[in-house]
Amino acid sequence: MSTTTGQVIRCKAAVAWEAGKPLVMEEVDVAPPQKMEVRLKILYTSLCHTDVYFWEAKGQNPVFPRILGHEAAGIVESVGEGVTELAPGDHVLPVFTGECKDCAHCKSEESNMCSLLRINTDRGVMINDGQSRFSINGKPIYHFVGTSTFSEYTVVHVGCVAKINPLAPLDKVCVLSCGISTGLGATLNVAKPTKGSSVAIFGLGAVGLAAAEGARIAGASRIIGVDLNASRFEQAKKFGVTEFVNPKDYSKPVQEVIAEMTDGGVDRSVECTGHIDAMISAFECVHDGWGVAVLVGVPHKEAVFKTHPMNFLNERTLKGTFFGNYKPRSDIPSVVEKYMNKELELEKFITHTLPFAEINKAFDLMLKGEGLRCIITMED
Amino acid sequence: MSTTTGQVIRCKAAVAWEAGKPLVMEEVDVAPPQKMEVRLKILYTSLCHTDVYFWEAKGQNPVFPRILGHEAAGIVESVGEGVTELAPGDHVLPVFTGECKDCAHCKSEESNMCSLLRINTDRGVMINDGQSRFSINGKPIYHFVGTSTFSEYTVVHVGCVAKINPLAPLDKVCVLSCGISTGLGATLNVAKPTKGSSVAIFGLGAVGLAAAEGARIAGASRIIGVDLNASRFEQAKKFGVTEFVNPKDYSKPVQEVIAEMTDGGVDRSVECTGHIDAMISAFECVHDGWGVAVLVGVPHKEAVFKTHPMNFLNERTLKGTFFGNYKPRSDIPSVVEKYMNKELELEKFITHTLPFAEINKAFDLMLKGEGLRCIITMED
Repeated sequence: MSTTTGQVIRCKAAVAWEAGKPLVMEEVDVAPPQKMEVRLKILYTSLCHTDVYFWEAKGQNPVFPRILGHEAAGIVESVGEGVTELAPGDHVLPVFTGECKDCAHCKSEESNMCSLLRINTDRGVMINDGQSRFSINGKPIYHFVGTSTFSEYTVVHVGCVAKINPLAPLDKVCVLSCGISTGLGATLNVAKPTKGSSVAIFGLGAVGLAAAEGARIAGASRIIGVDLNASRFEQAKKFGVTEFVNPKDYSKPVQEVIAEMTDGGVDRSVECTGHIDAMISAFECVHDGWGVAVLVGVPHKEAVFKTHPMNFLNERTLKGTFFGNYKPRSDIPSVVEKYMNKELELEKFITHTLPFAEINKAFDLMLKGEGLRCIITMED
Repeated sequence: MSTTTGQVIRCKAAVAWEAGKPLVMEEVDVAPPQKMEVRLKILYTSLCHTDVYFWEAKGQNPVFPRILGHEAAGIVESVGEGVTELAPGDHVLPVFTGECKDCAHCKSEESNMCSLLRINTDRGVMINDGQSRFSINGKPIYHFVGTSTFSEYTVVHVGCVAKINPLAPLDKVCVLSCGISTGLGATLNVAKPTKGSSVAIFGLGAVGLAAAEGARIAGASRIIGVDLNASRFEQAKKFGVTEFVNPKDYSKPVQEVIAEMTDGGVDRSVECTGHIDAMISAFECVHDGWGVAVLVGVPHKEAVFKTHPMNFLNERTLKGTFFGNYKPRSDIPSVVEKYMNKELELEKFITHTLPFAEINKAFDLMLKGEGLRCIITMED
């Protein structure tokens, strides 16, 4: 048993004190894990658009001061009452959505939207007692999506922790906590392209490129990348994208352009931008008879999806997915194995690395749209 | 070889001379089948809403004079050049959509929308030569959806003919040519409810009741019928419907009513009305995480399907189907077998029987909304 078990740990954390202001490196107190909770030593974390979105706090409830961060990898430091699946020393990925293994969603083979631990971006406290485990001088600092990985230590519900192969390099597999699994699973678990098929990917950010990686793994013969930013195509080639369509280059809707390129439409499409027009195009560009479109990007609150119902009657399918339909505890370990057996390439997603002290630079990189994933190393 | 092979056959047919006027029983000449065609002796035909819709000719291209009819059963009289799968004497169901077995759709396991023989309601002639096989005093009478079964003899493309078990009673299985297979397949092939699940059926006409029959066969524990006509519930019970919701009885949207009845939504829904509001309700009433909604009803040309995209992102699926995703030649024989082994009940769909001479009474029954299927016996 570690000497810190049951004790408050004082450690470094990057605190977002207010919306849009640089994070401040602070000494925080991290309380021990309570019932069904786990305290993790975070070794690597990366930055995802969702962190930036809630840091900017535009169009949502601002919750500050808060410790952001949800793509990470670490090691279990101690476990709370009732935790049997994990023990100190286990290598883990914390995940922003959970798997209680007890609700209707967890019991359904078709869903990963756990009723108890489903993502809740407004909640800044632990479920067990409605309190934060983080504090500075006794004043609570709020959690973020149950993970708060911009801290050397964090407390997470056991349902949000995936135990992985201890041989996996944590500085690589940390990106599987969110975006990469989301895109990959959208293709492999939901769109399910068959070998030799055609797939259109809307949006070539990290999630879209992970969706393309899924299409490459599935053996798609044509992977058509759609993005308004032509500079993304060169990078996208590394992820298996074979063709590129920039909607700005055409006077007609991009779904018509794609239908012409593919003799009536692609077999599958995956939408990773969250823009409603792209969602509609992604649906309408799939082939009648067998086309399946999958929505991944999170839409604007006011967005309305509109299409002629004959587009469905002609045997097209439209589905949405959340975290690539992966159940965190049951499925994520096998995604790590895909990387370990070289089926999945993660290195190409990692374009930058920074020490924890320079975490604000990672925000700058993302705001400038530079790179895909910036890994933040927690230890000096 | 029959004595009629290669000869023109003169027989009785019910001709629609103009929109909305009673059919007229005429002596028509039926030319021999050409390349890849089959001439059928129709023994039983029934009336489907689609016949009435094209007879009324509202909001579509009127094609007259025409021989309507597409739900039927008969026996092969003779075959044209190149037809190897069928021979005189075979018991068959003509189907309004086809299966050429050669196009991308026929080769896809996921589609039944044959590129060559897909339903074409405007075409009044045979594909081979662009001519009609029906005439009166040399003047052509047009075909309808490649079947024209309101005639003692008709000529059909071989791709639109399902060869069935010769022991099957043709006066029952004739209803499998269209509506019953459409509803049944929508549930069994597309919605695919699991044993014990909940299914909502929108519209309790023949197609909707066939969808309910599919849910019953699949072992659904709750089958919720939704219809604006409360008088349909009593009949619907025979088809396994366990609960009834009349949207008129509530001040809130029916999807909310269903969500409350089912702890968040049904597992599956099947929409069989073609009304856009029902389509939207059918989609929004399925449970997040795993719900699948299937659209069957044919919408108005101007209809627009609208919903918030979060309804997809919460892991709902929306699909459309055509003819229950059955490939006519490959799959319909097995649906006949479902009836033969008593898994599927057809008798309860057949509410009326009339001799061919009284076919206009079948139109009257349908216009009055009485009964489900009226079987028309061709032989006196």
